[in-house]
Amino acid sequence: MTEQSQKSAVVLVSGGMDSAVTLALAREQGFAIHALSVSYGQRHSSELVAAARIAQELGAVQHKTVTIDLRSIGGSALTADIDVPEQGGDGIPVTYVPARNTIMLSIALGWAEVLGADDIFCGVNAIDYSGYPDCRPEFIEAFRQLANLATKSGVEGHQLRVHAPLIRMSKADIAREGIRLGIDFAGTVSCYQADTDGRACGHCDACRLRAEGFAAAEIEDPTRYR
Amino acid sequence: MTEQSQKSAVVLVSGGMDSAVTLALAREQGFAIHALSVSYGQRHSSELVAAARIAQELGAVQHKTVTIDLRSIGGSALTADIDVPEQGGDGIPVTYVPARNTIMLSIALGWAEVLGADDIFCGVNAIDYSGYPDCRPEFIEAFRQLANLATKSGVEGHQLRVHAPLIRMSKADIAREGIRLGIDFAGTVSCYQADTDGRACGHCDACRLRAEGFAAAEIEDPTRYR
Repeated sequence: MTEQSQKSAVVLVSGGMDSAVTLALAREQGFAIHALSVSYGQRHSSELVAAARIAQELGAVQHKTVTIDLRSIGGSALTADIDVPEQGGDGIPVTYVPARNTIMLSIALGWAEVLGADDIFCGVNAIDYSGYPDCRPEFIEAFRQLANLATKSGVEGHQLRVHAPLIRMSKADIAREGIRLGIDFAGTVSCYQADTDGRACGHCDACRLRAEGFAAAEIEDPTRYR
Repeated sequence: MTEQSQKSAVVLVSGGMDSAVTLALAREQGFAIHALSVSYGQRHSSELVAAARIAQELGAVQHKTVTIDLRSIGGSALTADIDVPEQGGDGIPVTYVPARNTIMLSIALGWAEVLGADDIFCGVNAIDYSGYPDCRPEFIEAFRQLANLATKSGVEGHQLRVHAPLIRMSKADIAREGIRLGIDFAGTVSCYQADTDGRACGHCDACRLRAEGFAAAEIEDPTRYR
């Protein structure tokens, strides 16, 4: 497939392992990748550095970071002065950022319209995840319906697609898929409180899910812990 | 109704006449108003000054402006280096900002969750409007469905409501409703290219719709033209 005939896709890239695998899968499907990160005031901003590197390493056409100040609405351990817990409890944890995926997909939708892209990819996962409501298949389907009503493309008869290729995969499946695709997971940052160099705490929910995934897949954990 | 028993609502306030009337209607319904503006890089940033004043004059509990850099994705005469046309043509005009209402409602949704508010108001209108896809009733209904799947509140059994009280009103109806509610429309800014003092050009689509609304309602146009 030549550059000219390639279809474009917007891929949300956080810097973590899930979105890296998602980007590689979108590329494997033949899309020209426009990688999008959102700087929303997250405490683990070193993930944005990782996102830029991943986008480049995995062959994105371009990488853009859009800034939105979600600290001004607060309400989460990731954006407000609330401690990140050492392990998940029952219910939706304090690391949930209200409406984060809705906001990020909305920005992706806007950029997709500008680019004339009909495909949006995100790395949400509803198996080994933190119980966030906006990671479930029914959320993704509702967003797809909204996207087709919200946009000029939708009105003009394009079908916008929202892909969440990892949504039913276990973290071990994701780790294996990443290895197959040649991803160097040492460069991905999942930790909710990674240091400025991207090194992980090893204790938060994101670290725990990631470590369990590598263990279950029998892959040596390449995470750089501090 | 006492302050304590009042239900809270997040109201999107742009600084224009529609959202001013929406805010006043929400207040009339007894809600404690948390007014939200979005600074997205619009060329007519004087509307944000108007929004803050309107929120205060109409009795909002608080007013917050969230900043998001939509200039970085461009694609609209309001956020990129594209001229604002003097009059609307066929189809969706260049003043359409890709996914703007989806993004603004998503931010409102996030703030509503933080506040514990189940009600969001926005001033979209599908009668005398510029033909933007994200102003139609089916868009609002799709967003309501998404909101209830996207959030902790939705998962916990709350019903989130998305109110668009002006959606089927003509601009003349909106003007009359504003007069009934005591709104001073001289302080609202609708123009796409208002000057820094909020004075209108009198030529763009937004100015035209507004002027026609006052004329049809037989209300003297209070707009400050430059």
